[in-house]
Amino acid sequence: MANGKVEKEKIFQNYLNKMSKKTKVGIIQLKISKNKDLNLKNSISRIKLAAHKGAKIICTPELFMSEYFCKTESHSNFKIAEKIPGNTSNIFCKLAKELKVVLIISLFEKKLPGIYYNTSITIDNNGKIISKYRKMHIPDDPGYYEKFYFTPGDQGFKNVKTKFGEIGTLVCWDQWFPEAARLTALKGSEIIFYPTAIGWHPKEKNKYGKSQLDAWITMQKSHAIANGIYIAGVNRVGKEKKGNREIEFWGNSFVIDPNGNVISKMRSNKEGILICNIDFKKVENARQHWPFLRDRRIDAYKSLTKNQKND
Amino acid sequence: MANGKVEKEKIFQNYLNKMSKKTKVGIIQLKISKNKDLNLKNSISRIKLAAHKGAKIICTPELFMSEYFCKTESHSNFKIAEKIPGNTSNIFCKLAKELKVVLIISLFEKKLPGIYYNTSITIDNNGKIISKYRKMHIPDDPGYYEKFYFTPGDQGFKNVKTKFGEIGTLVCWDQWFPEAARLTALKGSEIIFYPTAIGWHPKEKNKYGKSQLDAWITMQKSHAIANGIYIAGVNRVGKEKKGNREIEFWGNSFVIDPNGNVISKMRSNKEGILICNIDFKKVENARQHWPFLRDRRIDAYKSLTKNQKND
Repeated sequence: MANGKVEKEKIFQNYLNKMSKKTKVGIIQLKISKNKDLNLKNSISRIKLAAHKGAKIICTPELFMSEYFCKTESHSNFKIAEKIPGNTSNIFCKLAKELKVVLIISLFEKKLPGIYYNTSITIDNNGKIISKYRKMHIPDDPGYYEKFYFTPGDQGFKNVKTKFGEIGTLVCWDQWFPEAARLTALKGSEIIFYPTAIGWHPKEKNKYGKSQLDAWITMQKSHAIANGIYIAGVNRVGKEKKGNREIEFWGNSFVIDPNGNVISKMRSNKEGILICNIDFKKVENARQHWPFLRDRRIDAYKSLTKNQKND
Repeated sequence: MANGKVEKEKIFQNYLNKMSKKTKVGIIQLKISKNKDLNLKNSISRIKLAAHKGAKIICTPELFMSEYFCKTESHSNFKIAEKIPGNTSNIFCKLAKELKVVLIISLFEKKLPGIYYNTSITIDNNGKIISKYRKMHIPDDPGYYEKFYFTPGDQGFKNVKTKFGEIGTLVCWDQWFPEAARLTALKGSEIIFYPTAIGWHPKEKNKYGKSQLDAWITMQKSHAIANGIYIAGVNRVGKEKKGNREIEFWGNSFVIDPNGNVISKMRSNKEGILICNIDFKKVENARQHWPFLRDRRIDAYKSLTKNQKND
């Protein structure tokens, strides 16, 4: 009997080891409507489809419950912020449990009256919220007035251990900061997911559109290369307009491997799902062949915590 | 008289302001021979040509006085290390003064018996060495056995004010570290030059060559984007062999603008010079339109000075 137990444990461990070396991620690229119930319905049906196709970690775009309200500064938008846990997070917790998948869900979080975050939660395959990441880098650009709405994240960069791998979640503007990807990788993540809402100003698209999109992809590739890590970007598509302010969200959701190769990418104008195989051995392989983490000059990086020109 | 003096000073300041907003850089891509005198002669004639074509800041490839000796670990190679100032640096100081240009010269520096650096000096248009950067990140990879030869740099990251703009010099392996570019940019540099010696292992070229070259360019583009800065990479070309160890240096020297666009690039198999216009207004423009430096979370970056998974 004792031997049988040991044997079972061994088989179980082998199974776990095998499982932990590979996984499948699901990327949900969405067109968002003004109607929250529709957004909920649309995202749930696509998450179910992704799970049905074998995805084990599924990620939604940034703030996908509503049109991108940061196009303008309007106090009335605060009313759509939600508590976490709350109605919306409860729905996705049930869904994660039902589908036995890990879900990354981006929400407009109301912490207290006057304190609101751009938050991404990770729900495990048992339906529990196991991590809450509050967007650390907050943009303020024409049409992306996020500093008006969001308090910058107060909990730093995070790694989450899930049944299907160790992952980090950063959000949109974080994509432009090598520091964010580096710190998340150093905490142990082997995939970083970026729920995103980025697009073109229609007036700029002709002249700068290609360069802007290229720059966006380039930055994500660079995080993959510099850290030997998988990177997944999950964006919305479609034109959204409020007053004079219009944004054409450029889609192009992607998964990049730890050598910086785009292994899968979506279109710029169509919603849908992307299922991608992840092989965690490639993370270790990349880091052994391109041993950048080995050679960081941690003795000489102190001024990264400063802005000024001179130390 | 006094008014005339004020007037002259004003004209001079206007001239300086105008001069400081634009410049031309010259990139010297070289094939290196076993013969130092030939390398000297070849580089000098190409530097002269670049200056003749209007280049004001001219950069040579990494360790261009000799074949890339780090292909193997051999104590006999230490004998080619040189004092700075020394014979070679003196030659280039005279040349810089003669041509009235800024020169960035990469040398194998002997500091003391047992302490050798991979050093890049900046010589101003009066022929003075105004900065000495000692390579901070030292690789150790098959065929790039630099940890055997070089003590890691002891002076950190540097900005140099020259008559033609504020520049930083990093070296080769530094290219893979976002921290190095960030710290150099934060010190005030508006162009970063990377003297480089990178290439393919002939056995890997077919399978990984494209991905490796892409990754290299991607990282440099990302430094340009993340920091709103010009990036210039200066590589050698040609096959060099020592025993069983062969490297095909891949050239592709480039200049990238502050939005991450490659504005000029050389071929992978031919030496030559590249002259590129630099408009420093583009640095400020990029940083105003992509205000990443504004939004860095310096309160949350402390762990960048660590390697470990958990704080």
